Amino acid sequence: MAEKLIINFTPTGMIPTKQMTPHVPVDVPEIIEDVHRVSEIGITMVHLHAREADTGTPTYKKEIYGSIIEGIRKHTPDLVICVSLSGRNFSEFEKRSEPLFLEGALKPDMGSLTLSSLNFNATASSNSPQMIKDLSRTMLENGIVPELEAFDIGMINYAKYLEKKGLVEPPYYFNLILGNIACAQANLLNAGIMINDLPDQSLWSLAGIGNSQLKMNSIGIAMGGGVRVGIEDNIWYDANRTQLASNEALIKRIHTIAKANERVVMSPMEFRAKMKLQTEKGSYGRLKKQVS
Amino acid sequence: MAEKLIINFTPTGMIPTKQMTPHVPVDVPEIIEDVHRVSEIGITMVHLHAREADTGTPTYKKEIYGSIIEGIRKHTPDLVICVSLSGRNFSEFEKRSEPLFLEGALKPDMGSLTLSSLNFNATASSNSPQMIKDLSRTMLENGIVPELEAFDIGMINYAKYLEKKGLVEPPYYFNLILGNIACAQANLLNAGIMINDLPDQSLWSLAGIGNSQLKMNSIGIAMGGGVRVGIEDNIWYDANRTQLASNEALIKRIHTIAKANERVVMSPMEFRAKMKLQTEKGSYGRLKKQVS
Repeated sequence: MAEKLIINFTPTGMIPTKQMTPHVPVDVPEIIEDVHRVSEIGITMVHLHAREADTGTPTYKKEIYGSIIEGIRKHTPDLVICVSLSGRNFSEFEKRSEPLFLEGALKPDMGSLTLSSLNFNATASSNSPQMIKDLSRTMLENGIVPELEAFDIGMINYAKYLEKKGLVEPPYYFNLILGNIACAQANLLNAGIMINDLPDQSLWSLAGIGNSQLKMNSIGIAMGGGVRVGIEDNIWYDANRTQLASNEALIKRIHTIAKANERVVMSPMEFRAKMKLQTEKGSYGRLKKQVS
Repeated sequence: MAEKLIINFTPTGMIPTKQMTPHVPVDVPEIIEDVHRVSEIGITMVHLHAREADTGTPTYKKEIYGSIIEGIRKHTPDLVICVSLSGRNFSEFEKRSEPLFLEGALKPDMGSLTLSSLNFNATASSNSPQMIKDLSRTMLENGIVPELEAFDIGMINYAKYLEKKGLVEPPYYFNLILGNIACAQANLLNAGIMINDLPDQSLWSLAGIGNSQLKMNSIGIAMGGGVRVGIEDNIWYDANRTQLASNEALIKRIHTIAKANERVVMSPMEFRAKMKLQTEKGSYGRLKKQVS
């Protein structure tokens, strides 16, 4: 029996705007509604980016993340929720870590942790070693599990370094994101090396930027891994870029491919059990931990 | 007949201090003396980092680079000279590009160009897409050839992007530097993928950080590539770290391994011809070029 399929849903991201695609959910009710809709089709977890209400630009504010989380949990209280801690637009630790201090019913289960500095198309994204360690420590202390994000081969080595330093604890979950311009390109050799290089006790999802999203998702499904999928990484439905994607259509296609590959979607509760996330009603993330 | 062996000598770097090793050449006369000494053994090119006279800390100042270049060319006027444009300690374009404005007898042949932002052990090194493009353009305009530096697989893809944009021109020279903590680790799979991924018309040298320097140099020699070698990347002579390396001893060992592998060191003039660097007496780098 094949491992169940993790579907990590990325509805929004930091880049897509309403000008680029009307399908991107930007404000709080839109994000909640998109998550609700695709949850009825079937997903395991959601990777959230919040936006400012007036400008639609990315924000770190925990009040906005809290509103999204509250709305999502009304419909789907078990869904695994990951908040973005991206440093692309905010460099200060206090801002980046702010969503990690949501508590109780608003506490996220996971927070994204990019494992190095890197370049995107137009901008550098700085994640200094000290920042990565500080975010890791704060996640351990607050009982929030890192969503380990690797864009190139060496970033996986840095996760092993964090493991050695006691700053991350298994079981691990990785997003392997290929096809970014200055990072690992979306091909089988690079994906294969990254998967083979993961530490023990790692779950993983494959993601691709732009046109490579479908390719990477398909090989993730074929090879027993998970998928990260949504408008965050790719606004088009087809390779020729004639048709804008809706999040719903992207998730439905994943289900079609999964079914044909005999893969069953992993439920949020099954993921919680595997990742040692709390499973009692109203409890989220892992238990808090004192870090020396 | 095997391709001749490029030896890219890196005497100083930004990290080693006299406290770490008395063998690191730091001030201008020391660097000139080390380059002179190893040139008599046989090298192809030198990758220079300048230091402040009083503090020994890294500097971008063209006066200091100029003094080193002047001193080196007294003994070895043909030696191919590359200056560092590192952004690890200076973020402004005006500072990073300063050594590119040395002229005439002081003009460097090449300038280092790291192809993405990345993390080192303790610090982030930011090289934004705009900075990389600006440095590339300035090098074209000043007739200085980029020493393309790739620490992970995706950085080679960025060189291909610069090629498409007309911001770098063949023939290319790459340093493939493996073993940095958050980048490609020093193993055969990673080295193999990086080498196979290089654009057409590329010469390359393999480098390894710390203990992996000797491994990467040896496979470079075995497989028909070049080596980047010196105290910049590695202060120890032996894997057990009982004996500090001198630059002279490191270069002598490369010659021993090269000889046993039937590899003959490429002369600076042979490298100039292959890289379309000027070969007339007193002319350095390539011709200047108008960039639109």
